[in-house]
Amino acid sequence: MLPITEPNPPFRITRASHVSLFVTDLAASRDFYRDVIGLVVTEETDDTVYFRGLEEAAHHSLTLRRTDGAPFADRVGFRVETDEDIDRAEHWFRANDVRHRRVDVAHQGPTIQFTDGVGTHMEITSSMEVVERKMQRFDEFRAGAPQRLDHFQVVTHDVQAATDWWSQLGMRMSEYTAKDGTEELWGSWMEVKGNTHDLVFTNGRGPRLHHFAYTVPDAVKLIDAADVAGALGFGEEIDRGPGRHGISNALFLYLRDPDQHRIELFTTHYQFMDLETPPIRWDVSDPRRAQLWGMPASARWFFEASPFPEEPVNEPLLSATPGTLEDYLQIH
Amino acid sequence: MLPITEPNPPFRITRASHVSLFVTDLAASRDFYRDVIGLVVTEETDDTVYFRGLEEAAHHSLTLRRTDGAPFADRVGFRVETDEDIDRAEHWFRANDVRHRRVDVAHQGPTIQFTDGVGTHMEITSSMEVVERKMQRFDEFRAGAPQRLDHFQVVTHDVQAATDWWSQLGMRMSEYTAKDGTEELWGSWMEVKGNTHDLVFTNGRGPRLHHFAYTVPDAVKLIDAADVAGALGFGEEIDRGPGRHGISNALFLYLRDPDQHRIELFTTHYQFMDLETPPIRWDVSDPRRAQLWGMPASARWFFEASPFPEEPVNEPLLSATPGTLEDYLQIH
Amino acid sequence: MLPITEPNPPFRITRASHVSLFVTDLAASRDFYRDVIGLVVTEETDDTVYFRGLEEAAHHSLTLRRTDGAPFADRVGFRVETDEDIDRAEHWFRANDVRHRRVDVAHQGPTIQFTDGVGTHMEITSSMEVVERKMQRFDEFRAGAPQRLDHFQVVTHDVQAATDWWSQLGMRMSEYTAKDGTEELWGSWMEVKGNTHDLVFTNGRGPRLHHFAYTVPDAVKLIDAADVAGALGFGEEIDRGPGRHGISNALFLYLRDPDQHRIELFTTHYQFMDLETPPIRWDVSDPRRAQLWGMPASARWFFEASPFPEEPVNEPLLSATPGTLEDYLQIH
Amino acid sequence: MLPITEPNPPFRITRASHVSLFVTDLAASRDFYRDVIGLVVTEETDDTVYFRGLEEAAHHSLTLRRTDGAPFADRVGFRVETDEDIDRAEHWFRANDVRHRRVDVAHQGPTIQFTDGVGTHMEITSSMEVVERKMQRFDEFRAGAPQRLDHFQVVTHDVQAATDWWSQLGMRMSEYTAKDGTEELWGSWMEVKGNTHDLVFTNGRGPRLHHFAYTVPDAVKLIDAADVAGALGFGEEIDRGPGRHGISNALFLYLRDPDQHRIELFTTHYQFMDLETPPIRWDVSDPRRAQLWGMPASARWFFEASPFPEEPVNEPLLSATPGTLEDYLQIH
Repeated sequence: MLPITEPNPPFRITRASHVSLFVTDLAASRDFYRDVIGLVVTEETDDTVYFRGLEEAAHHSLTLRRTDGAPFADRVGFRVETDEDIDRAEHWFRANDVRHRRVDVAHQGPTIQFTDGVGTHMEITSSMEVVERKMQRFDEFRAGAPQRLDHFQVVTHDVQAATDWWSQLGMRMSEYTAKDGTEELWGSWMEVKGNTHDLVFTNGRGPRLHHFAYTVPDAVKLIDAADVAGALGFGEEIDRGPGRHGISNALFLYLRDPDQHRIELFTTHYQFMDLETPPIRWDVSDPRRAQLWGMPASARWFFEASPFPEEPVNEPLLSATPGTLEDYLQIH
Repeated sequence: MLPITEPNPPFRITRASHVSLFVTDLAASRDFYRDVIGLVVTEETDDTVYFRGLEEAAHHSLTLRRTDGAPFADRVGFRVETDEDIDRAEHWFRANDVRHRRVDVAHQGPTIQFTDGVGTHMEITSSMEVVERKMQRFDEFRAGAPQRLDHFQVVTHDVQAATDWWSQLGMRMSEYTAKDGTEELWGSWMEVKGNTHDLVFTNGRGPRLHHFAYTVPDAVKLIDAADVAGALGFGEEIDRGPGRHGISNALFLYLRDPDQHRIELFTTHYQFMDLETPPIRWDVSDPRRAQLWGMPASARWFFEASPFPEEPVNEPLLSATPGTLEDYLQIH
Repeated sequence: MLPITEPNPPFRITRASHVSLFVTDLAASRDFYRDVIGLVVTEETDDTVYFRGLEEAAHHSLTLRRTDGAPFADRVGFRVETDEDIDRAEHWFRANDVRHRRVDVAHQGPTIQFTDGVGTHMEITSSMEVVERKMQRFDEFRAGAPQRLDHFQVVTHDVQAATDWWSQLGMRMSEYTAKDGTEELWGSWMEVKGNTHDLVFTNGRGPRLHHFAYTVPDAVKLIDAADVAGALGFGEEIDRGPGRHGISNALFLYLRDPDQHRIELFTTHYQFMDLETPPIRWDVSDPRRAQLWGMPASARWFFEASPFPEEPVNEPLLSATPGTLEDYLQIH
Repeated sequence: MLPITEPNPPFRITRASHVSLFVTDLAASRDFYRDVIGLVVTEETDDTVYFRGLEEAAHHSLTLRRTDGAPFADRVGFRVETDEDIDRAEHWFRANDVRHRRVDVAHQGPTIQFTDGVGTHMEITSSMEVVERKMQRFDEFRAGAPQRLDHFQVVTHDVQAATDWWSQLGMRMSEYTAKDGTEELWGSWMEVKGNTHDLVFTNGRGPRLHHFAYTVPDAVKLIDAADVAGALGFGEEIDRGPGRHGISNALFLYLRDPDQHRIELFTTHYQFMDLETPPIRWDVSDPRRAQLWGMPASARWFFEASPFPEEPVNEPLLSATPGTLEDYLQIH
């Protein structure tokens, strides 16, 4: 069932903003994101490395934290417009029994951590320390030259519940995948910032973080990233692409980091702002949904994702499954 | 003097949306925008041609109207969020003595035409007829494969007044050029949609439309557009570029249509959303403001623009002038 | 065993030049090569369509011939320098018991058809009708904008014999694949025109034509070709890529035509001219040989190819086999 | 008058190969070619730096030598096929009164330096020390990622004499510029390696080296080079481009080094091999000869070049002059 976006949400979310991950070998992961992906290291401490995209003026969009345990995802972060939005969010979380807490996070303004309607570990902040935009330091561009964090994809056991939860906070659906012949949601692409998505939920064992995505300047930089990955020994860690999604029109490349967290580099989303434009529907059985050309993604891409610490993973409510590369090769 | 953006504007503008031009030879201009630029013809009548970018679901972002007179610019158009915003705008225009009128425009929802604080002919609408997004009809891509209208640049005699006028409507300055050692504005880059600009005002004889701009997928498509322009006999109508602006970081190409209206194709603006980020300042004497490499623009690019019908053109209040190519070649 | 290139060959071959194919539906195949690949139709008759790349001044580099039978490959063609080279070739073929015949081929100068040492159906000519180079008709570029035919790959049962045969005609090996720990050739990349290859032999059931290849201007055009293939319903006919070969450094995309003949589009081979430079060796078990990043090619890519009419197909002498995508997915 | 290429030249030249320059500040010039252009430093001594392109297996294609005097060009180098070709060249130079001498050059095989028919300081060698091809070290690619040296352009007072001189050595004209309505040569594009040119002569005060050129992988790398030049403070040292030449179809970018020697980065020359294809003629007054779109080159580009030590510079015999940017701006 398609959601109704709340036109006057209780607080104003502006964009997907930052993500933090637990990693087992901080130096190895730093090298990966700096050299293979091309992110800028803003700051490094004994147990944390902060990265940003080349054009970003915010202190960090990716934070790696050293762990002695398993390499969980930590938190997915959004921006709200003002400090007052943080207050309003706190009020609303309290009124609606949302698990949450005010926290101090280095280099961030007022921040609340919370768990959304399907168990995803989230965070909102209203500001960050301002640093230099590096977008014109072309001499420092490396690999894919990622410019900015754009969106997250989360696997959830209940896409409908996730979609409804975020719709009440002003997120708007741009595209969706439904079980053939029904309006049962298999995947939901939702946005606040005016292009195709800030936050995606797809059906599966969740909550788990499927990937976070940075935008790159063009198709050549995507190839450059793949070539650099190959040259640095990460050629097998490209677990999908380059290819073109039907949904969102992204030209994409997915890579796995040393702990198997997944990052997407992509280019060419489209603008999605005008209210008269309906979301685009795709049948889950339509392979063009996932790629306009080439072969389907492997089971590795579909079924592997990063769980959140101490958050139980639930079996999906919906049984629809897209075809994998393994399926495809047995048929053809 | 830097403006203060109104956080709760009287009506909500969402984006630069559409432009209309008077042209003297409708067939010649249609061919130019379709074949040299690569826009999609949505609809054609005896005296009007409607175009859109490849990803646009709105009926038109460029309208050409046949004229027997001079090839004026007609109107620059923005979107507001809802029909209620049109009502609120009407109320505000009336209350503030803004020249305006409700009009019926084919393929548009409720629409108001008005004249802004420095005489620019403007229009707002809250919806358009929805048409097919062509962004995945890659077989129909031509020349620069322009995806969507992004922004306008207007020459005005009073950049400060223009900036102040639009700030009260919620536009926010991302970058600006000031006379060296002062805060006297020579140019003002203002946005509502979350990237560097929707509307630019620069100092000069105005109001005149300097250019409107479409975004293209990558640098190669910019070169493709130049190559196609050359192949079709419009090679001399590239009046600037390819080059890289310091302001906004755009990789740009400017072309003149058969009536000498100017269109920009560009790629790679950056995101501009977080409120803690200040605007970037450039001295008018700093050539990197205008291009990070290569030579300055010619007088043709700086001083030619399209006036609006029956709107008097005023001499600029500020005497600061950037260096032209002609100046540059005499020095070097 | 590595071959010794004859420094003074009996006749002077200059380059891979043209290929002809039998197709079952001439109109469908014409549309494919014109619209999905972007080749120029030089001429069309009832039973033949001639194509060339955009920069080619020669009448054809691809000829499609209608057949009522099976869609065989027809012939693989090379250029020799002068008419005298054709005479010298005829003399040498006769002296060396090579199956051959002088033929009249429309739009070609003196031409000899022959069968090489491993049964490949070949043809040489010393000239073609000169037509317009279209490389500056950028307005006519479509899809991958293929510029010129570059090379052929032939599957053979005896790579060593094929390599030796062509070495005596002046072909020089730039790279090769050998069974691990031996000099038994699994694949042989040979050139006459000064870049990595004009003619490739790989181990398998042969002789069969694996693919012919056109060079495209850049990586973006490769993506454009894939996107256009997807838009026109040929998205599943990309049977490999985009990817980067270790051998030859090509960035590649492979497509199957309506009869399952295979065409490669690629960019960035390197120059190979200086005699002091040895060929590059790759172990057949080294996956980087085939792709520097991403997953291996499927069995479909490895084992499907176009036989030649009435030419028996032999089982390979060498039992070395590279890993397929199917193998890979079972292991991982 | 068009030359007749000698089909059996006295020795076999294979390609444009290397260039050496005298520079006044070795460290500054090294930084320029390494960081702004992206060449690989093969070796560095107190007074010499050797560079190569990323794909080159030869020890050097560019040599910088420290000078306390003026920053002259030193020598322009070609490859011949074998050591015997060096002997044959020596014999022919002697027989034809060509100023020449055998020399020992570090990292090169047998080498002869000589002065061609119009006073250009030249060198041929038959081999170089073999080093690693870096074309798959994508992680080390910088700026334009230049792959290999491709050609030279020399200004000469007598283009006809230069053309005739090199034609007897097997060079073949692919394109030429002639004074309108005559066959008086203003410029001559000549090749041996099978694409449009290895050596160009244009009319002017000479002999002087106008530029040497490296090929880059695609248009995006050309833009990358310009962006890096801008970021590193060399934005004004782009003295032409990006643009598209009519002649040769190159997409080009020209930069000046710290001593004002000029380097071209370019992509997409076409193949030129078949003997039946005539050279392309351009009138010197046709601006499309020089650029298919955009404005003409400035006087700086046309008239500045690097003389050779102690070699007198002669006034041109032909008075035809192409239009400069300065001319263009006065007219338009």
